[in-house]
Amino acid sequence: MRMRHLLGERFKETPSDCQIASHALMVRGGYIRQLCNGIYSLYPPARRITRKIEQIIREEMDAIGGQEVLFPVVMPASLWQESGRYESIGSEMARFQDRSGGDVVLGMTHEEAAVQLARGAAKSYADYPFMIYQIQTKFRDEPRCRGGLIRVREFTMKDAYSFHTSQEDLERYYEQCRKAYRRIFARAGVPEVVDVKSDSGMMGGSTAHEFMLLTPAGEDSIVLCGSCGYRSNMEAAECVIQNPAAEPAPLQKIATPGVKTIDELCAFLHLRPEQTCKAVVYQKDADGQYVAVFIRGDLEVNETKLRNLLKAELHPATQITEDSGLTPGSIGAIGLSDRIQVVFDRSMEGIPCTVCGANEDGYHLTGVSLERDLPEKPVFFDVAKALEGGICPVCGQPHLQIRRGIEVGNIFQLGEKYTRPMGMQYLDREGKLQYPLMGCYGIGVGRLAAAVCEVRHDDYGPIWPMAIAPWQVHICALKAADPQVKKTAEELYAQLSRAGVEVIFDDRPVSAGVMFSDADLLGVPLRLVVSTKTCARGIVELAARNKAFREEIAPEAALQAVQAKIQSALAEDKKG
Amino acid sequence: MRMRHLLGERFKETPSDCQIASHALMVRGGYIRQLCNGIYSLYPPARRITRKIEQIIREEMDAIGGQEVLFPVVMPASLWQESGRYESIGSEMARFQDRSGGDVVLGMTHEEAAVQLARGAAKSYADYPFMIYQIQTKFRDEPRCRGGLIRVREFTMKDAYSFHTSQEDLERYYEQCRKAYRRIFARAGVPEVVDVKSDSGMMGGSTAHEFMLLTPAGEDSIVLCGSCGYRSNMEAAECVIQNPAAEPAPLQKIATPGVKTIDELCAFLHLRPEQTCKAVVYQKDADGQYVAVFIRGDLEVNETKLRNLLKAELHPATQITEDSGLTPGSIGAIGLSDRIQVVFDRSMEGIPCTVCGANEDGYHLTGVSLERDLPEKPVFFDVAKALEGGICPVCGQPHLQIRRGIEVGNIFQLGEKYTRPMGMQYLDREGKLQYPLMGCYGIGVGRLAAAVCEVRHDDYGPIWPMAIAPWQVHICALKAADPQVKKTAEELYAQLSRAGVEVIFDDRPVSAGVMFSDADLLGVPLRLVVSTKTCARGIVELAARNKAFREEIAPEAALQAVQAKIQSALAEDKKG
Repeated sequence: MRMRHLLGERFKETPSDCQIASHALMVRGGYIRQLCNGIYSLYPPARRITRKIEQIIREEMDAIGGQEVLFPVVMPASLWQESGRYESIGSEMARFQDRSGGDVVLGMTHEEAAVQLARGAAKSYADYPFMIYQIQTKFRDEPRCRGGLIRVREFTMKDAYSFHTSQEDLERYYEQCRKAYRRIFARAGVPEVVDVKSDSGMMGGSTAHEFMLLTPAGEDSIVLCGSCGYRSNMEAAECVIQNPAAEPAPLQKIATPGVKTIDELCAFLHLRPEQTCKAVVYQKDADGQYVAVFIRGDLEVNETKLRNLLKAELHPATQITEDSGLTPGSIGAIGLSDRIQVVFDRSMEGIPCTVCGANEDGYHLTGVSLERDLPEKPVFFDVAKALEGGICPVCGQPHLQIRRGIEVGNIFQLGEKYTRPMGMQYLDREGKLQYPLMGCYGIGVGRLAAAVCEVRHDDYGPIWPMAIAPWQVHICALKAADPQVKKTAEELYAQLSRAGVEVIFDDRPVSAGVMFSDADLLGVPLRLVVSTKTCARGIVELAARNKAFREEIAPEAALQAVQAKIQSALAEDKKG
Repeated sequence: MRMRHLLGERFKETPSDCQIASHALMVRGGYIRQLCNGIYSLYPPARRITRKIEQIIREEMDAIGGQEVLFPVVMPASLWQESGRYESIGSEMARFQDRSGGDVVLGMTHEEAAVQLARGAAKSYADYPFMIYQIQTKFRDEPRCRGGLIRVREFTMKDAYSFHTSQEDLERYYEQCRKAYRRIFARAGVPEVVDVKSDSGMMGGSTAHEFMLLTPAGEDSIVLCGSCGYRSNMEAAECVIQNPAAEPAPLQKIATPGVKTIDELCAFLHLRPEQTCKAVVYQKDADGQYVAVFIRGDLEVNETKLRNLLKAELHPATQITEDSGLTPGSIGAIGLSDRIQVVFDRSMEGIPCTVCGANEDGYHLTGVSLERDLPEKPVFFDVAKALEGGICPVCGQPHLQIRRGIEVGNIFQLGEKYTRPMGMQYLDREGKLQYPLMGCYGIGVGRLAAAVCEVRHDDYGPIWPMAIAPWQVHICALKAADPQVKKTAEELYAQLSRAGVEVIFDDRPVSAGVMFSDADLLGVPLRLVVSTKTCARGIVELAARNKAFREEIAPEAALQAVQAKIQSALAEDKKG
């Protein structure tokens, strides 16, 4: 298509609300337009990119036996009541009443719809396994939208659902899907995406993995082992602690006037944080019940693990009332009011001598051994965040690294979490009714596009991988009014288009500066430049957006050269 | 794909809630599954059909310079307030509050979103004309869902929006789009779709056309001229009346005890309905104001024309109160209370002698001439429905036919209806700010699929046109356990699939009856039958779903024969 017809404006200034590069470039390049918080329209270049991503996903889903379906966006509340999620999901699910007063919701995920579609149609073991997927709009009323298409409220998602008659079959298919995901990300030009163990959150189920594109702009923390390749997201990462050796000492109450924080305590007693025991206080959302977590002074609580352990939603206690039985600044494990629920982190296990609050303002206890000093033997749970340089739970080496990443996909083993409450059953070989096991598999299309931009750009614009680029070749005709330039450029445009190459053709009467900066913002992998100068020399210039090459070629050789470059770029993207 | 893996159940019984054939067949064939009133999920065969329709639409939109974009489903109320439609559209638009309390709506059409996307990006006359389109989910809280996918609440729609700097350019593009629509319907296998003049309804604007697939199952009435080719939907059709000659007579009040209806009046006075003047009473929605329409006794009021004339929403007056000034059964034009707004239909113009109510219970007036007997000369408007055998407003011949049809697309010239209130402007050649003119163009994807089924089916199932069929060839392997059958069928399946033919392969161990009735329900245009009998004779059977042919061919010749049939079927569909 001709640039002069392309809808969208390109400009130089970074909008003030753009915190990350991909967001700024996608606004500046005429890809997206915000309609309201977290809701965007896509201009043609972005729609071309998302369509290509959708097609890659579709091909890989079909290749593992996926059957494309379509679920509704608007669903009756009754469907979500069947699974229990109408109550368990909070205000991120949009709810309203239709004109007849019926309660409906907007789909933020489609497990319930998948079960509804499948349960009437897969009644015999012979119908299993199968996988259905859709590519459809979802709405999730996200409180913290950010980064353009990275975290939005409305988005296009591919969501797939598989159904199985045994855990082995679910696991086999889960593995197959994991491989398909790797191929999808490789084909989309980001083969460096890694899969990490993850917490299954509101989806339920046991095993889950997230696919992460590592970038400092990411909002998720990922734990990687530099030795053995162990990978996990922070929420699911086990925290393994080796405590420094220490001698037992007698329990002693000491005055610590004005000492409130672990830092102050360490300064006062000349200790390192590892030698202390910190209390972190939460409150349960449901009833306000206080929960005190006792954890080594240098560690942080992993709230997801805590939540999973207590099977309850909770929040940090920001206000501790006087009648709570808690003494902020001096909360300790020994002698704490029994109105407080306590959790001991594994980092406190077997420590012969530590320091904690004395539950009395201005006092702490030294020489504390939880196992010795508590009336009942404490049980320890892993509720700590893994930390940089920490011990790998798989190989035991202290080589953990913490990285940032954008979650571009996720897969879950759901088991019977939906099929059982929703009454989906099949007859097994023996004629007995069974609940099928389920897996689900998601990729956010727009987020993937933005994430690729985040890791494939320079100061001037995105550098789109060939397979998802809005066009393959950008023809820049400088001074297109010149008859020779016009003739050469038009011929190239016609010839390449005829051959099925996707061309954006810029013959606008603008300066070279404007033309090239617009081309940089469109990020098309190949560029053909035609100017009075190149025409005088009987050549055209073929260059790569990623600056890998810049060649002078005869116009007659351009088609062949372009086709060869496209092929090799596609092959290279996949390799990474 | 193999039939044994296809998700969906096929069965024989027509569900009790299915009133039209396409609905029944699409439920019985495992195409759709209702989730709640007017909301469906699509099983794989239906999704394959809608994807093919979408691709045909996309190609034809691209061919007329369309640029694909994506608008949001959820939009802020403020956007719809800009155009004034937040207030003017009723409860068919879903509205709710998001988690932060902001008013939002679900998109039922996207004129506002198109203007929002375009107004920041098309500031100079040089940016015009352009057309943007999307294929996206819409929600319209339809009170009367019916016919499966024919009339639903949630649906996939292609909606396109064009922008122009002159009425001539809008009209030129409108015509281009009309031709593209004809190509789309022809390619989808229903070249018989006709475009008819239509009322522009809530979209606003002047000129509008609907594309109608004629079928008795349709819910719209269409007026066609058998002589000149004039076509209009009922709402927009002009009603031309030639009144029978009559002699003037003196105005006279006569007793008509017990006469309430036109039929009773005709019986009582030995008249034909054409010789009477009927009063039809409406009330305005806004303030309950009564409106009496005086119209020839045999005609019906076209409420759309009345609504447009009065520029007000109204409903038939079902309860007429005593203090209204109306005397039900005897309402007449002469001496009517001036609290009643009156409308005279054109059918009453120039009639020298008719009969109407005397505004007194049990009495009528005869010898009425409105022009003579009313204190002020009446003005006549066309608010009558066209009728079978009526006069064509174009050629004047009394050859109007009324047909039923399904609206499968519509196009509108909107003018400045959205750009002006929403402040979209561009600088013209003289540097003056102007409002662009807009056109919009819609096709409902799912409805088109269902409409095609409605006009292309037999008692056993749909007969899908090749271009939108879920698969191109259905291989039926009868007794696939037989080694010879298995070998032949598997080879055919592999060979056709390799060649890019879309094959559904049924090798289930079911009876011939089940296999063929399932195949009929899937409606795949070509069928290859392999059985022990065909194998013994060294042939396979190639048959058309529409029964156009049934041939015996050598298995080695099957691929070539199938490819030839596909090509000719595609060509034939287009021709119609």
